[in-house]
Amino acid sequence: MNYIQYMPTKVITGNECVVNNSNLFKSLGKKALIVTGTHSAKANGSEQDVKSALDAQEIEYVVFDKVMSNPTISCVYEGASVAKANGADFVIAIGGGSPMDAGKAIALLAAQDIDEESLFSGQYENKVLPMAFIPTTAGTGSEVTQYSILTNDRAQTKTSIATEILFPTVAFLDPKYMEKLGVTTTINTAIDALSHAVEGMLSVKASTITNALASESIRMIMSCVPKMKKALEFSLSAQFDLQDREQLLQASFMAGVVIAQTGTTAVHAMGYSLTYFKDIDHGRANGILLGEYLKLVEKEQPELSKRIIGAMSLSSVDELIRITNELFGEKEKITAEEFDKYSKMAIQTRNIVNCVVKPTEENIKEMFTKSFL
Amino acid sequence: MNYIQYMPTKVITGNECVVNNSNLFKSLGKKALIVTGTHSAKANGSEQDVKSALDAQEIEYVVFDKVMSNPTISCVYEGASVAKANGADFVIAIGGGSPMDAGKAIALLAAQDIDEESLFSGQYENKVLPMAFIPTTAGTGSEVTQYSILTNDRAQTKTSIATEILFPTVAFLDPKYMEKLGVTTTINTAIDALSHAVEGMLSVKASTITNALASESIRMIMSCVPKMKKALEFSLSAQFDLQDREQLLQASFMAGVVIAQTGTTAVHAMGYSLTYFKDIDHGRANGILLGEYLKLVEKEQPELSKRIIGAMSLSSVDELIRITNELFGEKEKITAEEFDKYSKMAIQTRNIVNCVVKPTEENIKEMFTKSFL
Repeated sequence: MNYIQYMPTKVITGNECVVNNSNLFKSLGKKALIVTGTHSAKANGSEQDVKSALDAQEIEYVVFDKVMSNPTISCVYEGASVAKANGADFVIAIGGGSPMDAGKAIALLAAQDIDEESLFSGQYENKVLPMAFIPTTAGTGSEVTQYSILTNDRAQTKTSIATEILFPTVAFLDPKYMEKLGVTTTINTAIDALSHAVEGMLSVKASTITNALASESIRMIMSCVPKMKKALEFSLSAQFDLQDREQLLQASFMAGVVIAQTGTTAVHAMGYSLTYFKDIDHGRANGILLGEYLKLVEKEQPELSKRIIGAMSLSSVDELIRITNELFGEKEKITAEEFDKYSKMAIQTRNIVNCVVKPTEENIKEMFTKSFL
Repeated sequence: MNYIQYMPTKVITGNECVVNNSNLFKSLGKKALIVTGTHSAKANGSEQDVKSALDAQEIEYVVFDKVMSNPTISCVYEGASVAKANGADFVIAIGGGSPMDAGKAIALLAAQDIDEESLFSGQYENKVLPMAFIPTTAGTGSEVTQYSILTNDRAQTKTSIATEILFPTVAFLDPKYMEKLGVTTTINTAIDALSHAVEGMLSVKASTITNALASESIRMIMSCVPKMKKALEFSLSAQFDLQDREQLLQASFMAGVVIAQTGTTAVHAMGYSLTYFKDIDHGRANGILLGEYLKLVEKEQPELSKRIIGAMSLSSVDELIRITNELFGEKEKITAEEFDKYSKMAIQTRNIVNCVVKPTEENIKEMFTKSFL
């Protein structure tokens, strides 16, 4: 078994961990650029906690709160110039996947000059601003990965900057920021994490250690499914107590550690088009596609799909599909021509090379079609 | 759940990983101090692989091969002066726990002046030589921990230097170096790793992630027990094929990641005296004590012991005790007075504070006595 295991981020977990560990910011730099979205970090208290921690340590900061969902290349260049203009020497990203993915690119672009043409080249100097990351959703795992996934209009998809220097220096995991997260976001992000864990087990880079983490992550997320269904039924996110939030956050963190090693597979390859062209939420896209990819795996590597379905405590892939159908409700309408186009794009991605069970373009089209029936 | 997860070592695994990744040594420095014991690294080919890798990269090196079992303080000071005298700017440790533990202390002492009185103080500057570690037994997990455990004659026990700067920069895990490891060493080291994984689950610092890794590590080691018994019966280490060796190495690595977070507990606290005063091998000492500590856990936290016994696929702690009795054969003779003394020492260790089920001095004495019946 040949593999590399590397995840150098220091992860601090627990209630009030940002404020209680404010001294850690001191080791990162003298002036912070806080990278976040326009709204949620203010609403859930995370931005205020960060400011309190920085104030306690007498660290200056400037806020860049213009990160949109599925951040664009121009957004991260703008963030980097704000960092440079203000002399920020470290980055604090607060939010879901979007601010964190943007935060990494900003930390990179503030430390070295990279033109847009070379942004996804993989060729970077060994220079990046130190980063502290605070996830406020439980799904992306971006706080413990080396990926910055950006909307790439040139390639009409989402593209990763992937380099070891993008692992955040420190991540703070406090479930309290998720307490008021809406039902849809909770489900979409949880199923994104589920997809990470499952795809980790379906990757050619899966290892003993990633499989152990992935199985436990899958088990933890699936044990929250009954509450997800109930929350949907009553449209009430209060179904999730702090313990559920913590469980989903831990599971998402572990799934993040997994994909930092394994990368993702066909599900993400296919999902990116749904997000880029149809604005379907990333987690939702993965969740809708996951079952059909597992059907293909079941056909070609039954033992592998059996292990995954076993970790879910389900009896069959069909049972998973019934669950995701229930969680995601009515599907978007997408034409055969659109699926054709997305399939042609997906088959060319690195994610497909990364699959133990490599789908053909025909398989991909079939999976798209069946997923949206 | 409040905890910190941190393990920044890059772990490269697989057949021929040292030679195939020789470029990684280049990033560590210009001149290596190779820290090892007198014999085994030469016999199992690991030292030659390291030299070939360094030659390929035109990196100079000097060899310090004087590390004994349970390395002493004077040994690591001697190693550090060899490093300094030769201008070595990184350390490569090859061997079992002893050369690796010594290698960390040498990397520390070569980079900063620390007198013997302050060696275990925990107060160090942020300076250490980069380290590449190559385990040649599957037990200690030292390649992925921040601990350097040395024989401390002043305290009449083994004492840890524990600091985050002691995590090796890179670890190379190649099971081929264990192919000819003798039966006794194979069993002692495997059960040392088992003890790490179990104690990780019994630590107050256990977390979701460490429990996931510990459970899998336990499962993997226990699945090799039938081969261990067979190897004992025929005194033939050839019972273990390369796949078994890999499994034990992966399990030991995962258990190392666990104790890097959780520390060890009562078993290690007690075992150190057996090694210091009676020269009982570290893994053997832990293995002999493990069952009786689990009996105490069973009494006070039955759910916890049940999870561990479940991960072992056993039905009871007694079944584990029967297995360790079989693996370790006739026990050493130790007097009641000696156990008295060891119990008084064990109860004062930090490892006891670290226990979910904290034994009293009386418990410890009883566990010692029963373990050696």
